[in-house]
Parts: sequence; C-alpha cells; structure tokens
Amino acid sequence: MTVTTDNFSIEAAAAALADMRATRPLVQNITNFVAMTISANVLLAVGASPAMVHAPDESADFAAISSSLVINIGTLSESWVDGMRRAILQMNEDGKPWVLDPVGCGATPYRTAVAAEFARLSPAIIRGNGSEIMSLAGASGAGGKGADSTARSEDAVEAAKALARETGAVVAITGATDFVTDGTIVVAIEGGDALMPLSTALGCALSATVAAFAAVRAPFEAAVSALAVYAAAGAVAATDLKGPGHLPAALCDALYAIDGATLAANASIRVEAA
Amino acid sequence: MTVTTDNFSIEAAAAALADMRATRPLVQNITNFVAMTISANVLLAVGASPAMVHAPDESADFAAISSSLVINIGTLSESWVDGMRRAILQMNEDGKPWVLDPVGCGATPYRTAVAAEFARLSPAIIRGNGSEIMSLAGASGAGGKGADSTARSEDAVEAAKALARETGAVVAITGATDFVTDGTIVVAIEGGDALMPLSTALGCALSATVAAFAAVRAPFEAAVSALAVYAAAGAVAATDLKGPGHLPAALCDALYAIDGATLAANASIRVEAA
Amino acid sequence: MTVTTDNFSIEAAAAALADMRATRPLVQNITNFVAMTISANVLLAVGASPAMVHAPDESADFAAISSSLVINIGTLSESWVDGMRRAILQMNEDGKPWVLDPVGCGATPYRTAVAAEFARLSPAIIRGNGSEIMSLAGASGAGGKGADSTARSEDAVEAAKALARETGAVVAITGATDFVTDGTIVVAIEGGDALMPLSTALGCALSATVAAFAAVRAPFEAAVSALAVYAAAGAVAATDLKGPGHLPAALCDALYAIDGATLAANASIRVEAA
Repeated sequence: MTVTTDNFSIEAAAAALADMRATRPLVQNITNFVAMTISANVLLAVGASPAMVHAPDESADFAAISSSLVINIGTLSESWVDGMRRAILQMNEDGKPWVLDPVGCGATPYRTAVAAEFARLSPAIIRGNGSEIMSLAGASGAGGKGADSTARSEDAVEAAKALARETGAVVAITGATDFVTDGTIVVAIEGGDALMPLSTALGCALSATVAAFAAVRAPFEAAVSALAVYAAAGAVAATDLKGPGHLPAALCDALYAIDGATLAANASIRVEAA
Repeated sequence: MTVTTDNFSIEAAAAALADMRATRPLVQNITNFVAMTISANVLLAVGASPAMVHAPDESADFAAISSSLVINIGTLSESWVDGMRRAILQMNEDGKPWVLDPVGCGATPYRTAVAAEFARLSPAIIRGNGSEIMSLAGASGAGGKGADSTARSEDAVEAAKALARETGAVVAITGATDFVTDGTIVVAIEGGDALMPLSTALGCALSATVAAFAAVRAPFEAAVSALAVYAAAGAVAATDLKGPGHLPAALCDALYAIDGATLAANASIRVEAA
Repeated sequence: MTVTTDNFSIEAAAAALADMRATRPLVQNITNFVAMTISANVLLAVGASPAMVHAPDESADFAAISSSLVINIGTLSESWVDGMRRAILQMNEDGKPWVLDPVGCGATPYRTAVAAEFARLSPAIIRGNGSEIMSLAGASGAGGKGADSTARSEDAVEAAKALARETGAVVAITGATDFVTDGTIVVAIEGGDALMPLSTALGCALSATVAAFAAVRAPFEAAVSALAVYAAAGAVAATDLKGPGHLPAALCDALYAIDGATLAANASIRVEAA
C-alpha cells in the first residue's frame, strides 16, 4: 500500500471501524496482569473478539488462529517472554500483524532489553507514551516513572520517527495529543480527556484496540483509526464524570455505541508532516 | 440423591440460594487472570467467601479447608496446571465437589489435552459454552474463537449428554438459553441478557457461582440453581444499561439483592427431557 | 522521630495527604492478581504513581527507583516470592519503607512461612485483618477463611502490639474499626462502610495506599493517615449505593476528590492507649 495523506481522515477511521466490527477479528493478547480485564472489555465493546493466551505450550498454536496479536511487557517475566517470542514468530511466519506495547521501557535494564529485542522482530506497530518511545528509540535516558510518562508526547516525535525508520514499524505516541508516524509522515490525533491517565491500563487497552484495527487495515491507517476512535470514546466517556472511577465502564459504553457522527464530533485527525 | 424433575424449580433455586448464603461457603478459585477480580466480586455479592490460591506449594492444603473448588483453564500454564491437579486430587480425596470450566477447549492442543485430563478426574460439574462442550465431548472439531462460542448452546445438548455419561459429571452449557444435563434429564434455564457475552469473564464468574452452590446442593440442583440465579441477576442488571461497561458492577448489585420474587420474575426453569 | 499522641489527628492526616499528592511517589506493587487493577486505580485516584513490577530479573532494579513498596502475598508462588525478596532487600539497603500485607496468613503452612519470613525483614508497616495479624503474631491458631477475617479487629489488638514489638514494624489491623500500633501507643480509626468487605481486594488496595503515605511520613503517621483517608473515602463512596458492585469506582472517585473537610466529616482518629 502506498501511504498518502488521503488515508487519514475521520471518514477513513469510521470506515475502518465498520470493517473491523463486521470482521470481528480474534485478537490474541499477551499483556500485563493489570491490563487484562480492561483490554478484554474494551475489545468486546468496540467489536472484536479477545483472547488471552500466553503459555509457551500454546502461544504459537493460538497465534496461528488469531487475526492479530498485541504484546505488552507491563508485567513481564522469563516464561512470559518465552511465550511472547513464540507467538511473535508465528505471526511473522504467517504474515499477520502484531503490536508492541513497550510498557515501562527504560525503567529497568531487563525491561529495556526485552523491548529492544521485540522491536527488532518486525512489529507492525509500536505504541507507547513519550518516555517509553524515547527510551526505546535510544533517543534519551528518559528514566521513566513506572508506566506513567515523564515526557510529553510532542517531545517524542523525532524519537518516534527514528524508531519507525530503524524498525520498519509504524510508531504511535499517545498523550494529550497522539502522534503516529512511519518515519516520514506524522499524523496527529486530538481527543480524549485529562482523566484518562488516572485510570490504569487504558493505554494498554488502546494497544489492544490498535491490534484489532490492524486485522483490517494496513498498520498506519490501523493505528490512526484506532487512536481516533479511542480518543473520541474517551472524550464521550469523561463527560459528566466526577473522577476516574467510572471511566473504564464509561469508556466501554462509549466504544460500544460509537458511530461516525460521534467520532467526528469528538476527535480530529490532521497530517502534520509528510 | 435420586434426581427427579421435582428437584428443579424456581422455588428450589431460591431455597438453595438461601442455604448457600447461610453457609457462606469458602470457594477456592484456580481461575484465569481475566476472571479473578469479577469472580471474587460475584462470589462476595451472592453470599459466598472466595479465595484465589493456585501455587503447587499450597493449593492442596487450601483445598483441604475449602468447601468447593472451581478449576478454570482460561490462562493455563505448566505450574498452574500442576497446582490445579493437586487441588483436584485433594477435593476428590475429601469427597468435596469441584467444577471444571474448560475455557477455550479446542483452540489449541495443549488446552484440549489439559481439559480432557481434568474431565477424567471426576468433576462434579462441567460448565462451558457450546463450542467448549462440543470440543470436550469430542463431538466436533469446533475450533473455537478464543473464549467466545461459535456454536449455539442448543447445538451442544447431545454432546453435553454424551460428556455427562462419559465423565459422570453434570454438564452445563450456557448461552442465550442454558442447558444442564446428567446425561439423561435435560433442564433448560432462560434469563440473562444479550449484553452478557460483551463483558469479559462473566461465564467464568458463573462457574465460580456454580461451585458456591455445589457446597450446599447435589451437583445437578446446584448447577440449575446457580444458573437460574445468575440468569435472573443478569436480566435485572442489564435493565437501563446503555452498553456492557457497567454490567459487571450492576450484576454484583443484582446478585447482592436478589430474592425469591426477583428470581421468579426474571428467570425460568423447565425440564426438557427425562 | 519521637511518636507522641500529637502526631495523630485529622489535620495531620490531611497534611500528609497534601504532601503525598505534591510528591506523587512512585509506589512499587508486588501484589496479588485480584488486587492489581484496583490497587493501581486507587493509587492513581489518591494521587500516587503505581507500578507493578515483580520478576526476579528486575524487581530490585525497580525498587532502586521506587519511593516505597508494598508486598502482598495474596496469590504467592515460588518465583514471585523470589522477586519479592529481592525488592525487599533493595528497599532495606536504600533505607526506604515497605509495607507487608500478609493475606491469608494462617490458611496454609506455605503462606504462613512466607509471611513470617517477610515479617522478620524489617517492614515499616504490616497491615492485615484480625485473623491475619493474630496468625502472624502467633497469638492464635486463627485458621482463616481465605482473605476474609474470622476475627474482629478489636480481638487482634494485643496480638498486633506483640507483633509490633517483635518485628519493629508499625502494625495496622483493619475491620469495622481500624487499629494502628507500634507496640505501645494504639490509635483507632473509625469510618468506612459495611459494604467494603463485599468488594474484593479493597484491603489490599489500602495497603498500597499506606505505602504511598509511607513515602512522605514516618510509618506510624503514614499508616494512621492512610487509614483515615481511606475510611473517609469509603464512607463517602458507599453513600447511595445499592450494593457492592459500584463501590470500587465510587471509592476511586471519593479518593480523587477528598479534601480536609470531607476527611473530617467522614472519619475519626483517637488515641486509645499510650
């Protein structure tokens, strides 16, 4: 596919959403313990079919029947990394897309090493916050504060471009403004709400959503579409909330109900550089 | 106990609920990572006492003090299977009931093999969706789509009867209509809501609820009673919801509040074949 | 610090809360699978920065950048205990506080042995229910019923004092009334709601909250402040609820919004013995 700026619009995102729902892709999640329930619920609400299958004894067999895969290293350990590696290799062998979420990259040497190894294994898309992307790109020593970002998303755009060129992956940085790049074109997505970082693992569940869209679109369009849908749903969900407590449930309701009009009213997509 | 059709009625289910709440059974859960929190909350809400204890170092010791046990293979791995096996053997040695939830049976060879091994270890009750039950019964090559069912519950009734006869377990298939059989009698339960499959692990939490009832009733009555209570609570919970987001919380509230009248108004039990 | 009865008041708790929020401490959680999501959400809502990092390959490296640590043995297993031990030793080496939550201590020999080993490794604070504290103190054979307490908190005060003197830790017993002691002074905290034990892992999330406060206050003040804030938020959260279902979300909203006036109106602190 030739990527042009025509690929990125609210209309294109709405069409990708419709196709994804019609396909109901089976998305394999090898993700962290905190993110599992909300990831599954987000995927079900938006219209995909989630499965959590991580064991080395079966992760590749399951990858063989999955439409796409998300690898999230939030609570990694040795046997999980083994299971992740096997699933990744199967997806690559079958030519199916997988998404890398390098949670906390930069926080410990182990985590950084695993993230870097996986980044070299041809993920279709890498999604992280500013600190994680900068760390993974080797662009900074951004120490990281757990899964929270200490860098703004805009500060990581150059690192993201470098990381995209180095790995061949589309790179998405999420924050107050989201950015997606293939190393050349940069697309910005606006939406969401300031409450979102105060509810755990919503970024992880977004990575899972990106994987769902990657089952029906090329990586760049998939990432932009998923981020726009999520940004709009987050904005809708946060309306009338008094705090972050009910946000996960409200987000699922918003994802379940979202349509083209709601998407257009609550998110925007613009091509920043080409 | 001689099973007759007199055992199955809303009144019998309400009496089982009252007895379960009065007993507040300690239910050991060795379940998947996605289902743990909702299973614990469902058990607390309906009136049981949940515990999650899986390690091989202690699972049998804990089984020795538990009233019943649920084994759910949703996110199985080698050491977890070891812990499950030890807990099962202890329950069997002590003559206490345990429930098997063969999540995703049929999706990978590993998963199918573990489910089949456990089915031979005398579970009191096996609960799954249509695809899982058909796969476990060897009745079909139903490949399965993660934890979602690709078969309707009614399509799996004959497989369930065969599985019940083969294993000696009572087999429950849940779906739009639920069915429970001992291989001879088939009981159907109506209730619930179409939103329920869109909130993750509610089937897993139902298996835990079945285990709670198995602490105070023989397997067939326990399964029918638990399914009826859950079906009624699900119907109540889904009232006025705009999507699946708040369903887990609403379900817990409905289980906490449910009484005989609400049960009668929101679920039905009928004996289909004897 | 010399502990005097002047250290314990609603005003002191409100000041500790403000300092904690201003600091936004990075709290490392090695906790059980059921408690992870709610612990992270509670920490985010109250104003701390949570991270879940347990693997032996990185738990000590992460402890080196954390402000405080909570160790919760709810779903322990061999490799997790290894990761816990390494994180504890790093915190001790760095002179930073960590909190022990001995979930289910007394229920199995393995669990009791691990809890007793950790209690000897100089936790700043130990928080548990009555049964757990009594079991850990060796004060009783309180068998325990999963994570539920079979003893009232007031029955465990003498055991808590003995445990505090033996370990050097501040010991907190939570229940209808909460008690905190260093072995000499006993402080009682009132608040909360009877629904709280019916929502899973709220005690575990409280232990994580205690760890957040331990990053900005000495152990005794940290424990009393955290318990008072949580008791007030719990009382606020339970207002108008029809059951336990929405309690976790409502609790997060209440923690997010809590201020000195709400704290004063919904919790009380009194020094019982000095």
